[in-house]
Amino acid sequence: MKKLLAISFAAWSVASAVAWAGPVDEMMAVDRAFAAMAMDEGIAAAFVAYASDDVRMFPDGGEPYSGKQTLAERFATIPEGATLEWAPVEGIAGPSGDFGFTWGRSVYTGPASSDGEKPAANHGKYVSIWQRDEDGKWKFVADIGNANPDPDAED
Amino acid sequence: MKKLLAISFAAWSVASAVAWAGPVDEMMAVDRAFAAMAMDEGIAAAFVAYASDDVRMFPDGGEPYSGKQTLAERFATIPEGATLEWAPVEGIAGPSGDFGFTWGRSVYTGPASSDGEKPAANHGKYVSIWQRDEDGKWKFVADIGNANPDPDAED
Repeated sequence: MKKLLAISFAAWSVASAVAWAGPVDEMMAVDRAFAAMAMDEGIAAAFVAYASDDVRMFPDGGEPYSGKQTLAERFATIPEGATLEWAPVEGIAGPSGDFGFTWGRSVYTGPASSDGEKPAANHGKYVSIWQRDEDGKWKFVADIGNANPDPDAED
Repeated sequence: MKKLLAISFAAWSVASAVAWAGPVDEMMAVDRAFAAMAMDEGIAAAFVAYASDDVRMFPDGGEPYSGKQTLAERFATIPEGATLEWAPVEGIAGPSGDFGFTWGRSVYTGPASSDGEKPAANHGKYVSIWQRDEDGKWKFVADIGNANPDPDAED
């Protein structure tokens, strides 16, 4: 019995090690898919698709708010033609692998003016906090960003 | 044996439920103690005391950086007499109770000028991501904030 337990424990340890290595890759992949959807289907559609129902949002310059429904209403006011591009740089998961965050840099560009000129891009960074739901899907439960230096201005 | 397992499982479930209720209270208490230390012993001392060794920092308007050592060097440049007051509004923990975040509102006030006049306060909000280390102590592994509206300006 002791031996059986030892073997079971070893097998469990290996399974855990595998599970612990996975969540960062999973969160990074989900964040990349989220960013791709924002470019392909629009910022609002992507945020609604990847937000948890009780998401907490922390807009720069505005009051925090919560809930996917409120998010959808707010994001519906983003002007058509505006783009938000981002890429995660790093993901960090908690010890149990069901909660963590990604961070990365973002570029928001407003819609072109009537003469086709694009406004200046807004450079930022973000932290998205992710939780794996009961179905194994990662949803972001919080999202916050702030300003980053313009990389071109540093050259 | 089956009965014993069932009882053990029930006891484990109760223990888990208790453990799961705790981390939010723990994180809120730690964040409040962190804020109190920032007022009593200074912003830099408090951030160094509560940061994890590999903390990720996301200063508004600056590039992200990591590591408690770098944090200590950066925060050493905060002018004497500046204050940073904050209070957590809410804490959310992951399912396993060893990882989570708090958020709240903050007020940064620079040092008084030579004629004793205090500069205007900067209102903000923040998200701090916390992890319980091997010793059971909560340390923040990431910190990000951005601007909040001035509450007085809204009246």
